[in-house]
Amino acid sequence: MTDLNEIGKRAKEAAALMAKAGSEDKKKALLSAAHALRERMGEILSENRKDADAARDRISPALLDRLTLDEKKIEGMAVGLEQIVELPDPVDQLMERFTRPNGLIIEKRRVPLGVIGIIYESRPNVTADAFGLCFQSGNAVILRGGSDAIRSNLKIGEILRDAVKDHGLPADAVQVIADTSRESAQMLMRLDNYVDLLIPRGGAGLIRSVVENSTVPVIETGVGNCHIYVDAGADLDMAVDIIVNAKTQRMGVCNAAESLVIHKAAAPEALPRIFRALHEKGVEVRGDSYVTSLIEEAKAATEEDYGREYLGPIISVKTVDSLDEAISHINRFTTHHSEAIITKSEENADRFLREIDAACVYVNASTRFTDGFEFGFGAEIGISTQKFHARGPMGLEALTSYKYEIRGNGQVRG
Amino acid sequence: MTDLNEIGKRAKEAAALMAKAGSEDKKKALLSAAHALRERMGEILSENRKDADAARDRISPALLDRLTLDEKKIEGMAVGLEQIVELPDPVDQLMERFTRPNGLIIEKRRVPLGVIGIIYESRPNVTADAFGLCFQSGNAVILRGGSDAIRSNLKIGEILRDAVKDHGLPADAVQVIADTSRESAQMLMRLDNYVDLLIPRGGAGLIRSVVENSTVPVIETGVGNCHIYVDAGADLDMAVDIIVNAKTQRMGVCNAAESLVIHKAAAPEALPRIFRALHEKGVEVRGDSYVTSLIEEAKAATEEDYGREYLGPIISVKTVDSLDEAISHINRFTTHHSEAIITKSEENADRFLREIDAACVYVNASTRFTDGFEFGFGAEIGISTQKFHARGPMGLEALTSYKYEIRGNGQVRG
Repeated sequence: MTDLNEIGKRAKEAAALMAKAGSEDKKKALLSAAHALRERMGEILSENRKDADAARDRISPALLDRLTLDEKKIEGMAVGLEQIVELPDPVDQLMERFTRPNGLIIEKRRVPLGVIGIIYESRPNVTADAFGLCFQSGNAVILRGGSDAIRSNLKIGEILRDAVKDHGLPADAVQVIADTSRESAQMLMRLDNYVDLLIPRGGAGLIRSVVENSTVPVIETGVGNCHIYVDAGADLDMAVDIIVNAKTQRMGVCNAAESLVIHKAAAPEALPRIFRALHEKGVEVRGDSYVTSLIEEAKAATEEDYGREYLGPIISVKTVDSLDEAISHINRFTTHHSEAIITKSEENADRFLREIDAACVYVNASTRFTDGFEFGFGAEIGISTQKFHARGPMGLEALTSYKYEIRGNGQVRG
Repeated sequence: MTDLNEIGKRAKEAAALMAKAGSEDKKKALLSAAHALRERMGEILSENRKDADAARDRISPALLDRLTLDEKKIEGMAVGLEQIVELPDPVDQLMERFTRPNGLIIEKRRVPLGVIGIIYESRPNVTADAFGLCFQSGNAVILRGGSDAIRSNLKIGEILRDAVKDHGLPADAVQVIADTSRESAQMLMRLDNYVDLLIPRGGAGLIRSVVENSTVPVIETGVGNCHIYVDAGADLDMAVDIIVNAKTQRMGVCNAAESLVIHKAAAPEALPRIFRALHEKGVEVRGDSYVTSLIEEAKAATEEDYGREYLGPIISVKTVDSLDEAISHINRFTTHHSEAIITKSEENADRFLREIDAACVYVNASTRFTDGFEFGFGAEIGISTQKFHARGPMGLEALTSYKYEIRGNGQVRG
């Protein structure tokens, strides 16, 4: 098995150099990496074809689609790196400055986190995207992708390393782990001597396994059982538009709606309209007994349905007697990602915003806006569903920490 | 064994109420808790005497001293709560506000973390201090202290709960776990369904065990192998003052200096003076061969010495040929707490500040200033030595997260 300690050690050394790297050098290296991805597209496609051929018979068409690269996807990876270059370099940014009565001047400045590990599944695009964000924020990254995409990942990694090295920065700022065994992932999770943060990107099972087994700090990302609550007296046209958008604009993503909660005062008029609009898009409705009494075609929802992230054409529907009941239902089943209320009442909007325990809480808008680009962060490494360190869309700042720099002229403590 | 799931569930319910609690109500409850600690001092002292009597024969005098309360220590606990009341309430504080081109108004607001677990050893003062900070920042706290202090901790907990309840806030905002078995600590570490953050307060062994076993996010605190580097050309009077202060003003604390690094150009003149000053305070010097050649009384340092947090009257000394060697030695042995340079060179100061990987990096000042009160934060729950979530002295803000509140008027994603 690969000695991950060696990889960790090299990453830590690279991180120390990266922390000192100038903005201009990092930018040049990123632009050159983007250029190299285009130049060497043929090499990437050739390795990717081998991956796809080897995986074809044992993975689902959806996974095969995620695995397979084409010219457009590689161009997207290059453009992604170019977009990151446009973002302000967070390293060394002055966050606070204050002078103490004894004359000590204390500055709080942003610093890179150090070494970031990414554990991901079949999409080789993540290799370039994650590298770009970690690199621009002055970190070294260790990438442990899935076995299906290993040839593609290694080739992309080689191209990125060449570009970094050509600009006098450490090639080990990006390392792709060739060993895709279960053991290599487990070992990465225990590498807390060298790794400062681990970000799992993938399904709920992968994330749970990393949280359970890791001694390295972890950020949980991307599981979204997102709710839309339609309040009594809500604008029904708006409600229909938002629900259809949140549920169907893209079904397989974490910020898509999975559950509708509706006030019983609004249900008789609203539900049939909402049902028809969803039905047209091929979405199946599973509801409580009040829902099935109003909508003949609706199936009965089980308790389990309210906890599910379908990522497909099903929605659960729950009717409630009050805002309180809506909030308590949502807080029970939320994955702390994105939740929305459709209402005309400012008071109810304020209570919903304050009391719902989620990264992003919306009033009269679609949950689909939870996204680094939509928030104006330029890019994101994931959507954090935990409260620790970073919450919601994670841009460059989420990949940094800070230090206190204190200047004195001989102060001692009395 | 106690069912910690029940405790976790009650804490989570209390946390939901605490998140909605008004600043005034929290303040009144804290002041009333301070009052009750004074009023019921006799009850606390009586339980504490039982703890001390039971522990006397099996713990060291130093630990017995930490365990034993007197009127002055209890008064200090009450004053601590009153000081926390003076701090601004961080909950609901607006951190950022921006409008997107599509009209969405995004506000980033501070929210409590939720449920905080504290695992600590023999000092019962921690029960009141940790409660105060968690409560003022809108969190519920679960306290799991050591068995030696359990009667004291339960009594203090009872008094705090009474005060909280009297003000219409949930008593379960503070719970002391009566079961002090090893299993109860282990169980608390796996309670990630209910607990949002775990802070171990104690020795390096306790902290390591929590990091290794916890599925709840952990903040590592308080291990400090702090270095003072004396640069070539440093002001020697200043160097002696700072070293004596950092090493001897209080030896058993995490921000005390444990190691001296000195440029060989400065050593012949500086070391004998530093040695004499430390020797007067009863501090033993352990150094490399250059040190032992200059100072007859110095013992030879082993590699292990450079990694030790003595917390007592010993200091390790390493001589170096350059700033680079000093930085690389310190970054090898640092526990990322506090490090200082004594220098007249602005260039060397800047390099040291930038390249040393620690929470607090000092130029020409004592490491002893790493402290919530000294930084003006008013109070602290610990000194974080990790980069994740919070670094350095942790005040109320370190016990919060944030959420995005997004207001629209029907926006859907295109």
